[in-house]
Amino acid sequence: MRIRLINPNTTETMTETIADAARLVAAPTTRIEASTSKSGAASIEGHYDEAMSIIGLIEAIRDDPDADAYVIACFGDPGLLAAREFTAAPVLGIAEAAMHAASFVATGFSVVTTLERTRIIAEHLVRNYGMTQHCRRVRAVDIPVLALEDPSSMARARILAECEAAIAEDSSGAIVLGCAGMADLTRYIQDRLQIPVIDGVAAAVKFAEALVGLGLKTSKRGDLAFPLPKVYRGLTADYAPEEPQLKASRIR
Amino acid sequence: MRIRLINPNTTETMTETIADAARLVAAPTTRIEASTSKSGAASIEGHYDEAMSIIGLIEAIRDDPDADAYVIACFGDPGLLAAREFTAAPVLGIAEAAMHAASFVATGFSVVTTLERTRIIAEHLVRNYGMTQHCRRVRAVDIPVLALEDPSSMARARILAECEAAIAEDSSGAIVLGCAGMADLTRYIQDRLQIPVIDGVAAAVKFAEALVGLGLKTSKRGDLAFPLPKVYRGLTADYAPEEPQLKASRIR
Amino acid sequence: MRIRLINPNTTETMTETIADAARLVAAPTTRIEASTSKSGAASIEGHYDEAMSIIGLIEAIRDDPDADAYVIACFGDPGLLAAREFTAAPVLGIAEAAMHAASFVATGFSVVTTLERTRIIAEHLVRNYGMTQHCRRVRAVDIPVLALEDPSSMARARILAECEAAIAEDSSGAIVLGCAGMADLTRYIQDRLQIPVIDGVAAAVKFAEALVGLGLKTSKRGDLAFPLPKVYRGLTADYAPEEPQLKASRIR
Amino acid sequence: MRIRLINPNTTETMTETIADAARLVAAPTTRIEASTSKSGAASIEGHYDEAMSIIGLIEAIRDDPDADAYVIACFGDPGLLAAREFTAAPVLGIAEAAMHAASFVATGFSVVTTLERTRIIAEHLVRNYGMTQHCRRVRAVDIPVLALEDPSSMARARILAECEAAIAEDSSGAIVLGCAGMADLTRYIQDRLQIPVIDGVAAAVKFAEALVGLGLKTSKRGDLAFPLPKVYRGLTADYAPEEPQLKASRIR
Amino acid sequence: MRIRLINPNTTETMTETIADAARLVAAPTTRIEASTSKSGAASIEGHYDEAMSIIGLIEAIRDDPDADAYVIACFGDPGLLAAREFTAAPVLGIAEAAMHAASFVATGFSVVTTLERTRIIAEHLVRNYGMTQHCRRVRAVDIPVLALEDPSSMARARILAECEAAIAEDSSGAIVLGCAGMADLTRYIQDRLQIPVIDGVAAAVKFAEALVGLGLKTSKRGDLAFPLPKVYRGLTADYAPEEPQLKASRIR
Amino acid sequence: MRIRLINPNTTETMTETIADAARLVAAPTTRIEASTSKSGAASIEGHYDEAMSIIGLIEAIRDDPDADAYVIACFGDPGLLAAREFTAAPVLGIAEAAMHAASFVATGFSVVTTLERTRIIAEHLVRNYGMTQHCRRVRAVDIPVLALEDPSSMARARILAECEAAIAEDSSGAIVLGCAGMADLTRYIQDRLQIPVIDGVAAAVKFAEALVGLGLKTSKRGDLAFPLPKVYRGLTADYAPEEPQLKASRIR
Repeated sequence: MRIRLINPNTTETMTETIADAARLVAAPTTRIEASTSKSGAASIEGHYDEAMSIIGLIEAIRDDPDADAYVIACFGDPGLLAAREFTAAPVLGIAEAAMHAASFVATGFSVVTTLERTRIIAEHLVRNYGMTQHCRRVRAVDIPVLALEDPSSMARARILAECEAAIAEDSSGAIVLGCAGMADLTRYIQDRLQIPVIDGVAAAVKFAEALVGLGLKTSKRGDLAFPLPKVYRGLTADYAPEEPQLKASRIR
Repeated sequence: MRIRLINPNTTETMTETIADAARLVAAPTTRIEASTSKSGAASIEGHYDEAMSIIGLIEAIRDDPDADAYVIACFGDPGLLAAREFTAAPVLGIAEAAMHAASFVATGFSVVTTLERTRIIAEHLVRNYGMTQHCRRVRAVDIPVLALEDPSSMARARILAECEAAIAEDSSGAIVLGCAGMADLTRYIQDRLQIPVIDGVAAAVKFAEALVGLGLKTSKRGDLAFPLPKVYRGLTADYAPEEPQLKASRIR
Repeated sequence: MRIRLINPNTTETMTETIADAARLVAAPTTRIEASTSKSGAASIEGHYDEAMSIIGLIEAIRDDPDADAYVIACFGDPGLLAAREFTAAPVLGIAEAAMHAASFVATGFSVVTTLERTRIIAEHLVRNYGMTQHCRRVRAVDIPVLALEDPSSMARARILAECEAAIAEDSSGAIVLGCAGMADLTRYIQDRLQIPVIDGVAAAVKFAEALVGLGLKTSKRGDLAFPLPKVYRGLTADYAPEEPQLKASRIR
Repeated sequence: MRIRLINPNTTETMTETIADAARLVAAPTTRIEASTSKSGAASIEGHYDEAMSIIGLIEAIRDDPDADAYVIACFGDPGLLAAREFTAAPVLGIAEAAMHAASFVATGFSVVTTLERTRIIAEHLVRNYGMTQHCRRVRAVDIPVLALEDPSSMARARILAECEAAIAEDSSGAIVLGCAGMADLTRYIQDRLQIPVIDGVAAAVKFAEALVGLGLKTSKRGDLAFPLPKVYRGLTADYAPEEPQLKASRIR
Repeated sequence: MRIRLINPNTTETMTETIADAARLVAAPTTRIEASTSKSGAASIEGHYDEAMSIIGLIEAIRDDPDADAYVIACFGDPGLLAAREFTAAPVLGIAEAAMHAASFVATGFSVVTTLERTRIIAEHLVRNYGMTQHCRRVRAVDIPVLALEDPSSMARARILAECEAAIAEDSSGAIVLGCAGMADLTRYIQDRLQIPVIDGVAAAVKFAEALVGLGLKTSKRGDLAFPLPKVYRGLTADYAPEEPQLKASRIR
Repeated sequence: MRIRLINPNTTETMTETIADAARLVAAPTTRIEASTSKSGAASIEGHYDEAMSIIGLIEAIRDDPDADAYVIACFGDPGLLAAREFTAAPVLGIAEAAMHAASFVATGFSVVTTLERTRIIAEHLVRNYGMTQHCRRVRAVDIPVLALEDPSSMARARILAECEAAIAEDSSGAIVLGCAGMADLTRYIQDRLQIPVIDGVAAAVKFAEALVGLGLKTSKRGDLAFPLPKVYRGLTADYAPEEPQLKASRIR
């Protein structure tokens, strides 16, 4: 099976980190292919960055129409429903996967994300995914996404401290790491806290494998049916939905 | 006061309909300036069309940075939070405005939208705007958006019939028209049903006037602060957020 | 257009403050006419005061049946649905208007009200208006309503301090002032906090203008239809609902 | 123990029906004393009638300050929190009592009320009492309250038919009768349906006995503390809250 | 009337405490008969202890099939719906009864329970009983259940301190004691705090009396109908549901 | 990896069906070992059957303490949290797994279960798992669980018909089969409906593989920590929790 792992920001070093985390957990028979988005922001830190990243995400799916599943490797799960509409193969967001996984191993979890300004995005996802009862709190360490790659940012220590606060103050039994760029911290933090620490990239890869193994594809009945064919203009002209039969002939 | 009314689809005839509806209710001192999106779909009928329309929406705001307020004239309110981040002037979505207005004049309302496949989008908005208690049902007539402009589509009759069903079956006291393209039907339907019928375009224009009149701007503290300046690549390269001070010097 | 602004408490000096706030934002073509309630409490600070104030509110509407819209200028929105039943003209509560306005300019807001004992009233309104997702917290400064008019009460300083706490602790992007008597503090606080500060009196006036401009009236289908004509006894004898045709002949 | 049962409408024949239902279930040591409201509507069929009935309700409590508990015998529970503020003795609403009782004997129940226009009032109570999960539907037979006393109204047959529909369509295991005036139908309907049928008057009397037996009084900490003493004007002048010490000396 | 009060843990001294609390409030005509569970844990402090206690609970009901009502005297209300299915007589859980009683005398309450690890159980009950709006917080003192009987545990002082914190920090108007073993502390704490303090054992006894007085039994339509007769194996072989007619002949 | 698949009812032929469904989707490196419960009901059709099945479920886990993960193959997910407390290995319920899987491939799904009386159990799970927004309706075909194995019961046809009704009336994009005994119908129904049809047994197996692959175990911090060691009596005497260190030495 082949999973297309898409980093919707344009920073290639982050794609490396993400791909490593994915490969660490992928089944031997799963091939992880990672893309860095060709369009969009160097890091996704708000509603605007998210909205602007979707075109690059769709581009990446279009460039690889035959993957068995797709993973959107940004904790805001930008463009998740648009992507599900665009392809029939399963698409998983990493926030979605992480929260669902957390709900399987703890009755309450906390999310630890990067910037205070992206906290609301995670809170909206908590609500949309029905995780209000499980997610006890979304916390932010106020570190820019790209600083995660900078050793001098003390990111590691500050994230660990926030996770410790989550355990002490939120009565949480598990931690969800709220940024794809934190994927390489999972083991480090889990070893120290001795509770489940969940990285969405790894979780999404395993859930994608699960869905493919179940033979499940996105429902094409209702709102997730392929986009209706029509004319697109301007910057997006090239992204106009094709006739379904054309598309079906190309997508499995 | 000047309100920039943006039709996020690329069909100019629909922009005319929308602009007419807006001007009909605008205060004498309000100037309505309407734009048709330069990028995106001819009609917005799903998550994918919505996602692809946001770049055109932002383009339209960027092209007119000095408007006193902006209205997003598509019932899915695509890109609403991204737009609020991008500018300091108030931004209103028409679904948002219509639902809030309906909640002021009835304890329960129904939404009547176009396609069955877009019904879920309206249902998500109902939840996100806190309208679960007020909105008794979202109904779809299953007419494509552009057919609203085609007299032979019987759109008018079918929408009226659905509104009648809403009154009879949902115990609703008001109707929200679930598509910008229905703006010119408001009076027709209200005259026949004798209950409040609310077009979001008109509602958004009046609420935009209200916010401007109150001297309110979008909060720049937290997630709606201006996007952090950073590099954008590819199709969106031109949309990279500027330094706030640059931006501030250009936007009032 | 003529808006009847009703202070449902019986303190005339407070009516002055409220009327000033209303006139400050009203359109040039809007005439604000303010009434002090003739029946009820000198200040409304609890469920009992609220319940007892409704008869005075209705009295004020009945005394001016031809207003284009009515505003109930007490943050508990006492009698809102009763008033909507009694007249066909739009009726707005100031808590309702303030919360809706806040949700247009911030993804999260805090309410700062007077007495601890009235906090629950605001919390109930938050829930009834569907604002649970937007309102992050209701805070009380524990100042009696009438002390707002007393310079020695340090009301201004304490309210400002509570607003600052709201920003720091609740991650709120906007403040809703939770008492009609705070109307004159809006500018003062907003200037210091540099985030939107919303006074419900002003918001209600502008939304009332908006609804009148939209030609919307309260739905007379369902629970907000005119009260059924019947005999009333005792203190309320004079308030028995009339036959609808009688009423219709008097109310536009 | 002595329970003051207050019919907040002014129709004495209905008070008889209610008092009979109460006495049928009261413990031998409980004395039921029933009052017909001296102020307010002949029947309570909407938000306006409710609001106008509260002064009469408070009058009835004030006229008998020494009762061990009070029951508000109208299914909208008008003035419930105001009454709880006014007295320290337990106060129960019949809608509240009926819904709570139903939740003890079935996982789902339906409410069958009188007028379509009062259905929303019951729905608001369902939400406020946290009964959303238990109450599967509120149904209305569209019979005016006073027609319940008129044999030719076929009220009995129509209510029974609606209850049967509730069982068949709502999967409800119990019925809550949504009007004090239906109190005498409980046995009749329960015998035919063979499921629990709950009249709020009876339920409130028994729960009032329970609270008194537990030695519980309404909390005087927070929003239900006695109303703050202050001046009242106009029609309500006579209802100004007294100084607590005065009050305490009169109320046990 | 005869109420069977079942302590679902196997510690007889605790049954004494519970029975005393029950008898203190029971009506003169009510006979309280208390059982200590013959199967299960010495104390119930988690999901596992709860699950393992249900067989003993059912055993106790089966051993006394003619009681007028049953009370499950453990704050997690283990096996409540199973018990309601098993018998037609009313069954009350003490958490359920306490929370409902609290909602009758305060608009907000806090629960004070024993172990931090059982806090989530109370929180789940809050949600299942629709008490989310009323219950402001569940607090744990982190005292093992059986330590409540040990004077050296300082249980009394620590519970009182936690209740004081609840009043100060949660704005609660009442306290629900979150363990059957706290039944004898009610008066002590209430005297010190001067707000309603509710022990579920007492509340459940009074509500059971109320339901019996109303002639209400558990609905046998739907999910609470008697268990379908079928073969059981192993440890539970003896608990196979009988044919309803057999059962009906034995249970009133 | 080795997954212990536990049929908590005592019918061995059903275990066969379930094990077949599990093996069909298990990875080549996964060994499925299926157990039929030694204690409990021949079929689980209500709260009582569920409660009585938990001891057999725990027995099955105890008999195989070294499995990498456990699946509870009954759609009510009986004893899920107790099992998670009892072992550190991941435990998945099939209702839980099916609903989560459905939410990944459709924005709305319907559950089709067996008996009307078990419908409420599924509805409670929907709420507890946060699936209220995704699950549009729970439907019952009113076929006893064991009739699923009886060709003359027309079970297959009736389930298919109910699924078709779900698509037509609920606007659902996917179907969740609400009984472990339906596992062999998945393919049959999916082929006919052309939308995702999800059997919880298969979904739970794949999610269990995913969690094991992620190295996740149930959080032992908080309510899911191993049960506190204590004395158990009677039928459950043999199930008293051991000292953690003893347990840890036996469970990986």
